[in-house]
Amino acid sequence: MLVLEARKRVGGRTVSEVAGGVALDMGGQWIGPSQHRIKELAEAVGVKIFPAQAPGRAVIWEGGRRKEYEQGEPVPLETPEAFGEAEGAFRNLSELAKQVPAGAPWKAERAWEWDGQTLETWKLGSIRGEEARFYFDLAVESLYACEPRDLSLLAVLADIAATGTFEGLFEIEASAEEYGFVGGAQEVPVRVAEELGERVVLGCPVRRIIQGEDGVWVESGQTVVETKKVIVTVPPALRGRIEYEPALPGAYDQLSQRMPMGAVIKCHAVYDEPFWRKSSLSGDALCDTGPCKVIADSSPQDGRTGVLTGFILGRDARVWGCHSARERRQAVLDRFAHCFGKEALEPEAYAELDWAEEAWSRGGYDGNAPAGVLCDYGPMLREPIGRIHWAGAETATSWTGYMEGAVESGQRAAREVLTGLGAIGVT
Amino acid sequence: MLVLEARKRVGGRTVSEVAGGVALDMGGQWIGPSQHRIKELAEAVGVKIFPAQAPGRAVIWEGGRRKEYEQGEPVPLETPEAFGEAEGAFRNLSELAKQVPAGAPWKAERAWEWDGQTLETWKLGSIRGEEARFYFDLAVESLYACEPRDLSLLAVLADIAATGTFEGLFEIEASAEEYGFVGGAQEVPVRVAEELGERVVLGCPVRRIIQGEDGVWVESGQTVVETKKVIVTVPPALRGRIEYEPALPGAYDQLSQRMPMGAVIKCHAVYDEPFWRKSSLSGDALCDTGPCKVIADSSPQDGRTGVLTGFILGRDARVWGCHSARERRQAVLDRFAHCFGKEALEPEAYAELDWAEEAWSRGGYDGNAPAGVLCDYGPMLREPIGRIHWAGAETATSWTGYMEGAVESGQRAAREVLTGLGAIGVT
Repeated sequence: MLVLEARKRVGGRTVSEVAGGVALDMGGQWIGPSQHRIKELAEAVGVKIFPAQAPGRAVIWEGGRRKEYEQGEPVPLETPEAFGEAEGAFRNLSELAKQVPAGAPWKAERAWEWDGQTLETWKLGSIRGEEARFYFDLAVESLYACEPRDLSLLAVLADIAATGTFEGLFEIEASAEEYGFVGGAQEVPVRVAEELGERVVLGCPVRRIIQGEDGVWVESGQTVVETKKVIVTVPPALRGRIEYEPALPGAYDQLSQRMPMGAVIKCHAVYDEPFWRKSSLSGDALCDTGPCKVIADSSPQDGRTGVLTGFILGRDARVWGCHSARERRQAVLDRFAHCFGKEALEPEAYAELDWAEEAWSRGGYDGNAPAGVLCDYGPMLREPIGRIHWAGAETATSWTGYMEGAVESGQRAAREVLTGLGAIGVT
Repeated sequence: MLVLEARKRVGGRTVSEVAGGVALDMGGQWIGPSQHRIKELAEAVGVKIFPAQAPGRAVIWEGGRRKEYEQGEPVPLETPEAFGEAEGAFRNLSELAKQVPAGAPWKAERAWEWDGQTLETWKLGSIRGEEARFYFDLAVESLYACEPRDLSLLAVLADIAATGTFEGLFEIEASAEEYGFVGGAQEVPVRVAEELGERVVLGCPVRRIIQGEDGVWVESGQTVVETKKVIVTVPPALRGRIEYEPALPGAYDQLSQRMPMGAVIKCHAVYDEPFWRKSSLSGDALCDTGPCKVIADSSPQDGRTGVLTGFILGRDARVWGCHSARERRQAVLDRFAHCFGKEALEPEAYAELDWAEEAWSRGGYDGNAPAGVLCDYGPMLREPIGRIHWAGAETATSWTGYMEGAVESGQRAAREVLTGLGAIGVT
């Protein structure tokens, strides 16, 4: 077994950057309580997790005004009924999702109907209030790093069907019940890679995969590896950037044209202490305008250093991606200050990562399914082509796009390959 | 000036294949009366055009039943009012399109609203009858080689705004007012290439484009060309398969992830004569089921040989693309026979091309814009990145995706480059 890794590091969309003496998660960061696979993997390689939620009140910044509220309480939007209306829509989505088979949403009785419309269309038909719509958008941006127009209704129902409820998804993302990794999420793949040792080759982007009768050849620059089976783990959007001989069947190539990556710039500011906690604030905030509409506390477990994290998402990521890094930093810190006070303006360190600029991801959090794609191309996400098998977070049947999904997909692809090699029973 | 062509031939999505002694257009074939640029280019290189419409009645095959009707008359769908209802929807689209600025649809006042929904959603809200919906779908498949769910409403309004009316688009496609090229549409690029001589290098797929301060280097295998400006003409979906140094800005890469190619298998059967004309049939047919829902007469001008052409479109192309070539041929010929009689079962020759299987196109007719894409990424279709300019049918401001659009885009990109090189005034 050999891992050819395009980057000069392992971890893909989990990566740590040390700034201000703290290992900051520039990509995947938190795991939820029902994400057992990633938790077990972390335990197996000796990476500890810690509860990520900080006590205190959250902040909503809306119309230039700031309000605090207790976590778990209704978000005090300007229009009192708006939060309830949005929550009602979340519940309706969760109800619809009960009709969707987990892992095979294209088999739902109403699959074509739901895949023919954008989530935006469903929202406009289901929510009347402007502010409830804003809150719905915020939830979608937070969960998918894209706008409701970029997703089919079926795509969202599929995620809910495979993981629980929409409220649950959003709550995990936005507030409680989460865990971070001591040392950062990248520690997990780093430790796995240590165990694999020389079987991991870094800086080795695969350019071409040639299938023959007796084997398959994987080319990266001057390196050619001959083997029996290949697992391709890049997101579907990047599959087509590898050359295949024979070429991928047309529909498989077209799938690669149809699952665009979301857009996110993740921004961290490091402070010498989590100063907001002195005001009984948790560090969580929601905002009605960019750059970062979602803010969270990423302070390490010891609580000595403070870290605020802003997510610039979807359209905001495109708009703010065109500004200079300096302008972006200032706008993010200004927003942090709106929510948590002027101390936010003077961090010890600041770090950001625009995932659309990352050569081997070209977006984040993950690949999303616009209208029509799941029904027409969904089954091809995991279907092997000869000796080529597919893994990666987008191919998971639950927690698609999450670290948990990535681990699930890796385990599933490994089983496929081992079965194909006649090594059934090997674990 | 140098043209690096990936294929071992010129013409891209126009290509002729000789079968049964006839040059068959396997890709782009007809031009409409208002497509002046391609017409002028054809004249300039000495390629003649001829009226493509054949006299006679058209056929509709619906519910296993066959009806004939005069071209230009209402299509006799089973439900008498269905055709009128669909035509009403076409007119409504054309009315809406008046609010869309040609070439810059993202500037329409209601752009976000229209780009947030699929054409499918608009159809369901605008057409009540099942059969009128079927006819609407047929028009969309015929025009875009995809389903209404694969397009945003704005994308279709943009095309109408830039070309005339939806009825006009569909009528041109489906019946009258068209011209074919004597010898096939590929004759035009072939003659242009002859004029360029050694400045066209075939079999030279560009893998990497490196921009420096003083110039740009274009790599294809061992060949490296140094120049001042580059025009990339591949469809947006394939732009990301070229490597760029420095990398494309994130949003430009993401555009490449968001304009998937349609799906079409074009099938020709060649007969020793256009036998259907003896029955006063034009060779045009519409069908309510696959493989080919749209059939046309592609007989050459002399009228001695007969050619029937079936279009397998959108979902049908994916489904029938998975059958064997033999099964597909039989199903297409059976359908021709349903429409035009048993003589259709015994062609002199048969040829087909599945554009999703074509290495340097990976779909056809062209790249389509799903919901959200035009508003968020449309302006990047044509915006140069340093020394890199963009052309190709998808970048046209009118007749996007057509040969006419390809010529327009080439002329526009050439002007950009000449202006940038200080050669303004050169034509």
